[in-house]
Amino acid sequence: MDTIVSLAKRRGFIFPSSEIYGGLANTYEYGPVGVELKKNIIDAWWKTFIRQREDMVGIDTSIILHPKVWEASGHVGGFSDALVDCRNCQYRKRADHLIEEHFAAKGQEDVPVEGKSDEELDAMIQEEHILCPNCGKFAWTPVRKFNLLFETSIGIVPESESKAYLRGETAQGIFVSFKNVMDSSRVKLPFGIGQVGKSFRNEITLGNFIFRTMEFEQGEIEYFFDPEQVDWKKLFENWQNDMWAFVTKTLGIDPEKLRWREHTDEERSFYSERTVDLDYKFPFGFKELWGLAYRTDYDLTQHMEHSGKDIRVVDSSDGRKFTPHVIEPAVGLNRLLLMTLVDAYWEDTEKNRTVLKLKPALAPNKVAVFPLLKNKPELVDKAREIFRDLSADYAVAWDDRGNIGKRYLAQDEIGTPVCLTIDFQTLEDGTVTWRDRDTAEQVRVPVTEVAGKLRALLLE
Amino acid sequence: MDTIVSLAKRRGFIFPSSEIYGGLANTYEYGPVGVELKKNIIDAWWKTFIRQREDMVGIDTSIILHPKVWEASGHVGGFSDALVDCRNCQYRKRADHLIEEHFAAKGQEDVPVEGKSDEELDAMIQEEHILCPNCGKFAWTPVRKFNLLFETSIGIVPESESKAYLRGETAQGIFVSFKNVMDSSRVKLPFGIGQVGKSFRNEITLGNFIFRTMEFEQGEIEYFFDPEQVDWKKLFENWQNDMWAFVTKTLGIDPEKLRWREHTDEERSFYSERTVDLDYKFPFGFKELWGLAYRTDYDLTQHMEHSGKDIRVVDSSDGRKFTPHVIEPAVGLNRLLLMTLVDAYWEDTEKNRTVLKLKPALAPNKVAVFPLLKNKPELVDKAREIFRDLSADYAVAWDDRGNIGKRYLAQDEIGTPVCLTIDFQTLEDGTVTWRDRDTAEQVRVPVTEVAGKLRALLLE
Repeated sequence: MDTIVSLAKRRGFIFPSSEIYGGLANTYEYGPVGVELKKNIIDAWWKTFIRQREDMVGIDTSIILHPKVWEASGHVGGFSDALVDCRNCQYRKRADHLIEEHFAAKGQEDVPVEGKSDEELDAMIQEEHILCPNCGKFAWTPVRKFNLLFETSIGIVPESESKAYLRGETAQGIFVSFKNVMDSSRVKLPFGIGQVGKSFRNEITLGNFIFRTMEFEQGEIEYFFDPEQVDWKKLFENWQNDMWAFVTKTLGIDPEKLRWREHTDEERSFYSERTVDLDYKFPFGFKELWGLAYRTDYDLTQHMEHSGKDIRVVDSSDGRKFTPHVIEPAVGLNRLLLMTLVDAYWEDTEKNRTVLKLKPALAPNKVAVFPLLKNKPELVDKAREIFRDLSADYAVAWDDRGNIGKRYLAQDEIGTPVCLTIDFQTLEDGTVTWRDRDTAEQVRVPVTEVAGKLRALLLE
Repeated sequence: MDTIVSLAKRRGFIFPSSEIYGGLANTYEYGPVGVELKKNIIDAWWKTFIRQREDMVGIDTSIILHPKVWEASGHVGGFSDALVDCRNCQYRKRADHLIEEHFAAKGQEDVPVEGKSDEELDAMIQEEHILCPNCGKFAWTPVRKFNLLFETSIGIVPESESKAYLRGETAQGIFVSFKNVMDSSRVKLPFGIGQVGKSFRNEITLGNFIFRTMEFEQGEIEYFFDPEQVDWKKLFENWQNDMWAFVTKTLGIDPEKLRWREHTDEERSFYSERTVDLDYKFPFGFKELWGLAYRTDYDLTQHMEHSGKDIRVVDSSDGRKFTPHVIEPAVGLNRLLLMTLVDAYWEDTEKNRTVLKLKPALAPNKVAVFPLLKNKPELVDKAREIFRDLSADYAVAWDDRGNIGKRYLAQDEIGTPVCLTIDFQTLEDGTVTWRDRDTAEQVRVPVTEVAGKLRALLLE
């Protein structure tokens, strides 16, 4: 993991936030290549799940919604972490993390902790006699709950201020806008609404880089259907297949490192009929990437009760009024990015280099253009011409500094699939050196064929 | 303006936020076609200013940065609105809005108010004897300042909480990450760093729809250069040309509705050598769209002083250490969207329809596919096949309900450049009806030629 973190910083994927001010815990910035990789993953998600499907539409709702939204959704009351404090040294820790780490140290990775009640967590800590990792004593308080929503105030003077929250998930914006979408768009059930955006959770984390951060990017879909017309089990399976295809084909992830994990009865929310997680084997263990939950009509019903508005749907065939049910595939986009980095990382010991074997369509730069020498205007001009032509369609890197070998290695580390070197032969016969990232092989290719070859590569 | 607001809601561009809970002031949601239009505008900005330029890179920094960032930038101390209260009825108002509206009612649109000191604003209110728009009395308090940053707290228990702010602009994330970008990327001066993302301002607005909202999307660029090597006046002009080209060519806006407005000496920040705004003539008057400011080395210097870190750059030719200067083109992306909607709006009285004449490349859907009748499987299957083929490359709408004329009118209102109708003749001779949005003309086109014709249209 440390190698990934260090590569990510060195090459401009991900930096610690506010570093010149000593940093800010669990907060990161996406640098020049990181932001492109993130954008490519988000765009692939959007294209696959929104644009290419006739049964899906997108939406973009606010980070600060009406505070009642979070009361209705249950976040104000129940969205919290269970924490324990060491009475001896005041060390504070999430109870589930404490227990998980304890079992992991014993080599038991798969002891179920999620979904346990406070009492059950207390009991596990007692039974296992888990000591404080900080002072070594056994002096824990009972588990206490702390809400994860960030609070803020709207309105500029104390007497007119009103409390508001930064959204803890993007899903509620979809539920609250459901009626507006139904009324304004020519959609009909079954159909889904998808959203990409930032959510915020004020939580203690284990510090696994960008796996869990204070603010993070979600890709959530609520797929609405009439439970009398649609078999939810079949629909659930279809979504599992779509999620699997996206991760293995579109993102090119090794299927051996993926698994489905069924939520246990105690872990699942009371209103959910079934929940599964798609997990990826990160360097710190199998962890949730993408959750799929059948949430019944719980959320829409809650919003109807709290708002007093009828947002039910009328069946056009028989006039029956009903509340649609939903299946929710919810993914952490920063986790997809972290997985993509981890999965693509390759140390080529034979050629003594580090390579990110990203799928070409996801690579921050599709191609890099190098004039062999930067003090030869005829080479630079020709290279610049090629750069401009390719830039119309692709993200292209430009590098005219240092020896060519070093420039290749720099592009390998950010996953650029192809490097083109413009040299004196280019001026004579119109060919460039096409250098492949994965094989490091170099061939001469006519400039006129470059765009076509690139296009083919990106369809892989 | 009301027609735009109503169209935006009716067709799924923009809804009032949290409407089932009575709404939330100055907050809006982007619906199914709104989110696509916004994404297309943002992607065009990103492609033009980041990907296609060899002297630009992107970044994506956090909404919650280290709180010292906002002390250094001056936002904690000086980022505020000047407000007055009516002592008679407790009505509160921004002083500049009060004065502007007063002059506007007298037909004087261009009285300069921005940049005035509190004392000058007080004096103007007194001189003009401006009455309270709510109760009609003249009983104002003197101008008072209120900070615009939203506050929140990091950390989950009171004793360890620390105050933090939601960013008031995306620019500071760029300055704070400047050194990390320099160190990790093969960039060299002059070059720029661009960012797209949400910023938050806790302010009173005039309620001009999405023109000014609590949370809004910015596209900011900081272009760094060595003032000893680069003539800032020339660079400033180049940026003016690039901004103008983007608005008129890429977004296709009528140049007659644009103007440059030079900031006056009193309005400009003390560290800025020159600031101009690119204004668009909205239905509520000429308003700022895009600001361009030469900010000298003010921001980097502030961050060096407050962080104690040296983030100067070394000139490789003579070893001279210096702080780069910046030119900042900063645009409100929601304003670009509002302008695009307003500018594209066309009431075709001859054909009794409303059309959004969006540039094809910006339209939420590039094409709509209609099977003539939805109860004829052979038509639906053929239409679905065409839908799927086109969806690989374009955002495609599907509509199989109601008569074809109404379906055309619905697509006109969301700006879809082309509608394709699949009818019985399609099954016989492989042609479809190609219906043009702007002329409403219909021609038969072989299915095999559709993709090529669309591609040509999108290059317009």
